[in-house]
Amino acid sequence: MQKIVQKFGGTSVGTIEKIKHVCSIINKEIKNGNQVAVVSSAMSGETNKLLSLAENFDIQNNKLESDMIVSTGEQIAISLISMALKEIGLKGRPLLGWQIPIIGTKDFTKAKINRIDDKIILEIMNRGEIPIIAGFQGIDEDKNIVTFGRGGSDTSAVAIAAAIAADRCDIYTDVDGVYTTDPRIVKNARKLNKISYEEMLEFASLGAKVLQTRSVEMAMRHEVTVQVLSSISGNTGTFLIKEDEKMENELVSGIAYSKDEANLTLINILDKPGVATKIFSPLGEANINVDMIVQTGSENGNNINFTYTVSRKDLEQTILIMEENKNDIGFERIIRNNSLAKVSIIGLGMRTHTGVANKMFSALASENINIHVISTSEIKISVLIDETAIEKAINVLHSTFELEKK
Amino acid sequence: MQKIVQKFGGTSVGTIEKIKHVCSIINKEIKNGNQVAVVSSAMSGETNKLLSLAENFDIQNNKLESDMIVSTGEQIAISLISMALKEIGLKGRPLLGWQIPIIGTKDFTKAKINRIDDKIILEIMNRGEIPIIAGFQGIDEDKNIVTFGRGGSDTSAVAIAAAIAADRCDIYTDVDGVYTTDPRIVKNARKLNKISYEEMLEFASLGAKVLQTRSVEMAMRHEVTVQVLSSISGNTGTFLIKEDEKMENELVSGIAYSKDEANLTLINILDKPGVATKIFSPLGEANINVDMIVQTGSENGNNINFTYTVSRKDLEQTILIMEENKNDIGFERIIRNNSLAKVSIIGLGMRTHTGVANKMFSALASENINIHVISTSEIKISVLIDETAIEKAINVLHSTFELEKK
Repeated sequence: MQKIVQKFGGTSVGTIEKIKHVCSIINKEIKNGNQVAVVSSAMSGETNKLLSLAENFDIQNNKLESDMIVSTGEQIAISLISMALKEIGLKGRPLLGWQIPIIGTKDFTKAKINRIDDKIILEIMNRGEIPIIAGFQGIDEDKNIVTFGRGGSDTSAVAIAAAIAADRCDIYTDVDGVYTTDPRIVKNARKLNKISYEEMLEFASLGAKVLQTRSVEMAMRHEVTVQVLSSISGNTGTFLIKEDEKMENELVSGIAYSKDEANLTLINILDKPGVATKIFSPLGEANINVDMIVQTGSENGNNINFTYTVSRKDLEQTILIMEENKNDIGFERIIRNNSLAKVSIIGLGMRTHTGVANKMFSALASENINIHVISTSEIKISVLIDETAIEKAINVLHSTFELEKK
Repeated sequence: MQKIVQKFGGTSVGTIEKIKHVCSIINKEIKNGNQVAVVSSAMSGETNKLLSLAENFDIQNNKLESDMIVSTGEQIAISLISMALKEIGLKGRPLLGWQIPIIGTKDFTKAKINRIDDKIILEIMNRGEIPIIAGFQGIDEDKNIVTFGRGGSDTSAVAIAAAIAADRCDIYTDVDGVYTTDPRIVKNARKLNKISYEEMLEFASLGAKVLQTRSVEMAMRHEVTVQVLSSISGNTGTFLIKEDEKMENELVSGIAYSKDEANLTLINILDKPGVATKIFSPLGEANINVDMIVQTGSENGNNINFTYTVSRKDLEQTILIMEENKNDIGFERIIRNNSLAKVSIIGLGMRTHTGVANKMFSALASENINIHVISTSEIKISVLIDETAIEKAINVLHSTFELEKK
């Protein structure tokens, strides 16, 4: 008998019919002789509907209230799942964050999970019933409802799996697992059977929306075996595992991309210590995430140019903030570009093999694709290219690294 | 400085605009130098919407889940009120049943309030903030969410007023207070400035939907001064007070009515001890409320006829149950009538004055209105008449007892 956490996303529980289908998935695992704990998101569309109600007011100034409102979405979903389970003869038990409790930090709308009491969950499982736990929500030490950010139900599920020492955490979604790249762009993209936590972390933080980044970090830290799989197909999904459990470390495991890139270059800054701080502190205060930072010499002797990327939606505000700090930073002018895309290759094998970067750049050159900025990590190389070249770039990289082959 | 509980019903918080208006009412009381605790229902229509979602399943078999779903309505309303208060510079604090806590019995969908912890509510008020409390909901001893039945927010408000020893509990609704009778039927119906708990209890249990019956019982038991008033007009409402605070006990304070009546008569029952139990136990088990019971001799010597009224919606099921128990009860046949209405006059003065009943019957006779059944209590006389005569009956009684005059 295994202990399994099953997490269902909003699209998996989007209608009463889909909720009944989810119950058949739960039932199958129970009939396999396993103990199951369920974690659910809100029905698809619900969270947005609730947010738009809250947006009649200034949410930034009302985060406690906003969390209290949006957390009702999961409350309704778990109740309906429990009702649907009863129809097929299973006894469920809906549990809200405060009833367990799941204790988070006091950061409304983006709290982190501090600890989960396993007592009630295990009691319910041990008497043969099924805890149905509201994802996305917990309480802080003062009994306020807090939520865990968009996609936070993934993190809830992994944290609960860690807390109850589950044998596996199955994350049900509307795709069959993690692919070598987006199958809508590359026809022979291949589903990965296994992927290491580290690689998945890069995938998630590069915008592949299969899993919330924090849920992968949490799985890695607590070594939770996570399976990403489809609630529709019934196929085996992709397993997230420790690096040393992978027999062979592929040179490149997959290709991620993001079309949401904009970059700006501050031209001709006098190179003095502390200039980077002057640029990035006001952006940090405005909660603007900065990526792919490059510093180069400028045409003017001792001066430098500073290039970095932000999300497109943040570009105007970023420029505004730069202009406000123009004298302090001491640049001459700004060049902007908001029609860029980022393509990244990810693979554990890069650690030990050389020449991967060169192979990537050659492949792109062979298709006449111009690279604007490069950034690398231990297991990832990202390049910034023109948005129009994105599909061509992904396809040539996919075939260059032979990702269609097992 | 007074402590005041302000309770707002669903229609008072039905839209964002109305919520903002409610905040101006709260603000007015604060500017008067008083401390305020707010209790709110769900936005109008919300509870029904949530119930219809739950009704995809068998609610009777899923009461825990149903309560978890419908309680989200108030959760959203109090959050929005808190946000709207902040816009006008007041600091509110939304509080759910479990956060206080409000402890109720384990009777899902119709729990009773056992106790309320006043600590958090008073702490918030004492630091100059405004607790905004979800009506209708609490938790049982096992931390399950329970709700207090339709209109339960009234009971929440009165119970909170009792718990924090409030000077007054203002119940805001869409009418100006309690009237001598329905102003839609009698043009010169008059708003009562005061009414005793006992009289209000009769009004409420006779179907005048101004207040939930249990909230009146609760107010009477704890001697909470309740004011029923309009959130729109701004006029002084009707005060519920102790009997001995009324200077004069009116002979008749008001007239209540119900069009929802059906009655049936079991003809020719052999009169043996225990026959009433045989009739009413199976109805009790089926949760059918029985009213106005009359036993008369039958045409056949030692036998009796048994007449009683039920809600029209229950009539068919009642007849079915009677037929199932026909041999056990031992009646000959059933006569039914489902086009009846009940008219009641209510007044503390009946206790000490005679002739009220006779005056009522004469007035009805003068209009040729036939009385089918009569039932009385210490401060109430009810008669069952043909539904078609209801308006004529109410009008003649209103003028006979001079209710239009102060």
